[in-house]
Amino acid sequence: MVVLGIDCGSERTGYGVIDSDGTTHRLIRAGVVRTSPKEPFAERLRRIAVPLREVIAETRPDQAAIEEVFHAANAKTALKLAHVRGVALLVLAEARLAVGEYSPLEVKSSVVGYGRAEKHQVRLMVHSLLGLREAIDSEDACDAVAVAICHATHELTRRRMAAAYV
Amino acid sequence: MVVLGIDCGSERTGYGVIDSDGTTHRLIRAGVVRTSPKEPFAERLRRIAVPLREVIAETRPDQAAIEEVFHAANAKTALKLAHVRGVALLVLAEARLAVGEYSPLEVKSSVVGYGRAEKHQVRLMVHSLLGLREAIDSEDACDAVAVAICHATHELTRRRMAAAYV
Repeated sequence: MVVLGIDCGSERTGYGVIDSDGTTHRLIRAGVVRTSPKEPFAERLRRIAVPLREVIAETRPDQAAIEEVFHAANAKTALKLAHVRGVALLVLAEARLAVGEYSPLEVKSSVVGYGRAEKHQVRLMVHSLLGLREAIDSEDACDAVAVAICHATHELTRRRMAAAYV
Repeated sequence: MVVLGIDCGSERTGYGVIDSDGTTHRLIRAGVVRTSPKEPFAERLRRIAVPLREVIAETRPDQAAIEEVFHAANAKTALKLAHVRGVALLVLAEARLAVGEYSPLEVKSSVVGYGRAEKHQVRLMVHSLLGLREAIDSEDACDAVAVAICHATHELTRRRMAAAYV
């Protein structure tokens, strides 16, 4: 199953595409979309949507995953993030992709096995799980891959649960 | 100048298109997009984008206007609203429309002449300014028209200021 993970941000939005059976994962593509704070916000949203659509067209994922957004931290930042997340969800819905939504705690638990893991531990595990020799360029891309791995793992569990209850 | 105003909401998003020279306003079209809370959120965002694009294609606005979003009130509601607003801004940017953003206070000041006006006063003034005999069906559509009127009025002021400083 090909899974697209997205890590939203108004300045940097990461994406990561993996091929996974829920236990072994292979990296297909990862990258980051950068936008300039100097541009009007609406234009920045457009500049995020365009490459996300390209990635979907080129990698043809079966499913997608994205992190939940929290109103904790900085309220203004959370609101900006929610705009970007709305655009990402729209792009996914337009591509008719089912979307899994996960909390940061779920992503960390799934990738590291510990919900309160540090960011660098998540990134270390992402590289380890994918058997990567070279580091993924951007931290945001790496976080997006972590969300994709989390979704693939959860999907396997869901399929197993469904099979057990037949 | 044809102005499209949008009033975002996750359950109901209003839109209003007016033709205005900044002093006299004529209603071209107003309506509301409703989505069901039973549907996945990403799909609801898609169902908001589709009719907004149709309205733009059919009424060909020159500019657009939208209300600012605040983190006041309910944080969860504000975050949902920000997702919808992100989608609306994307649609406007894709149509290459310049977007004016106004606070509720600015909209009320512009339409009623008093920033702390009640909602029903705003609606009364919208109908009066447009010389409407029949009421606009939806309150959200009416609020969207108010944002469009606010923008048209501000645009006239901006043009006059620019002319004065030549």
